[in-house]
Amino acid sequence: MKQINFEDIVLFEKQYRTNLVNGLSGFKSALLVGTTNMKHQHNLAIFSNVVHIGANPPFMGIIHRPVSVEKHTYENIKETGYFTLNHVPQSMYKQAHQTSARYERSMSEFEACGFTPVIKGNCLAPYVQESSLQIGLTLEDEIKIKANDTILLVGRVKELFIANELLDDAGFINLDLAKTALVHGLETYYTANKLDRLAYAKANP
Amino acid sequence: MKQINFEDIVLFEKQYRTNLVNGLSGFKSALLVGTTNMKHQHNLAIFSNVVHIGANPPFMGIIHRPVSVEKHTYENIKETGYFTLNHVPQSMYKQAHQTSARYERSMSEFEACGFTPVIKGNCLAPYVQESSLQIGLTLEDEIKIKANDTILLVGRVKELFIANELLDDAGFINLDLAKTALVHGLETYYTANKLDRLAYAKANP
Repeated sequence: MKQINFEDIVLFEKQYRTNLVNGLSGFKSALLVGTTNMKHQHNLAIFSNVVHIGANPPFMGIIHRPVSVEKHTYENIKETGYFTLNHVPQSMYKQAHQTSARYERSMSEFEACGFTPVIKGNCLAPYVQESSLQIGLTLEDEIKIKANDTILLVGRVKELFIANELLDDAGFINLDLAKTALVHGLETYYTANKLDRLAYAKANP
Repeated sequence: MKQINFEDIVLFEKQYRTNLVNGLSGFKSALLVGTTNMKHQHNLAIFSNVVHIGANPPFMGIIHRPVSVEKHTYENIKETGYFTLNHVPQSMYKQAHQTSARYERSMSEFEACGFTPVIKGNCLAPYVQESSLQIGLTLEDEIKIKANDTILLVGRVKELFIANELLDDAGFINLDLAKTALVHGLETYYTANKLDRLAYAKANP
């Protein structure tokens, strides 16, 4: 095996370091974050650092980059208090990736990248119509990570919309049917194939 | 589509709610967290809420449940300041899942579940020999998430060990070769298949 140390990493050429370090955490779901501002200018951005924080009450989090420059997603969440998380269908991974480009605020990534915004339920932020699992959240907390000024945005799940066939009788979401796209690093997209569902693990089974 | 509201979720039967809400964030890599205490009693536990926090300097985070009860992983990290993150080979997803069982502290999950601890580099915590991507971190920060007392543990990447064939000339990690196992929710395991690697997205390509 090759050993790479902290001192190597900080001295790597920037793009090499970005590729390597972004890849360490492995595969993640690619979720589209939908937001809007008080002028109803919608924004859509792909995020891969989404975490489960709790089931009861239901909380989810996203890691947001430092906001030293203009960040439409962050500003919109702060302005309205709402955001949506939308699973990306496999067939639309290219469009989803395109939302990471720097568009002017007046240009909605929904329109620029080919997604349809939907306002529904009790959420000010737009959902992605093409997504078969759409989650509406309110901003519960904003936690600055002092190590590098990134931000953990904690959201409370206020409602969700799920294609009927995805939800089984036990509450499991059949993501294989949703065909949610995966991302590794910032640019490599994957699909997933089910291996197995295991029982709750016990020390003395 | 079916609409489910916050009020529905909190009233669901517990197991149904757990299955549903844990599934919302989608697919994640299943990483094994290796730790030890000052008596060299090793611990190994599967975590699926691992995030990239920054590339320069390199930081990663894990979401840890509230520590109201005995939590060996947390206690060991606090005691030594070190932990490792190890990608799970697909072929060992059952053994990895088994680390989530509640073992006594005197019983190492390495031994109980069939993994081999390795102490190497400059890390007090054990690596998993069977893993082709092993990351050693020091505890940089511990952030309590007030919403539900979960904890974000921020780690500084001090070193990593990677199988030679996984790392390409541009710094990309070829995870398809690593065959890292994925998990959805707490119990459904997946493999991933590469779709595509996309270029950095530009607004006016």
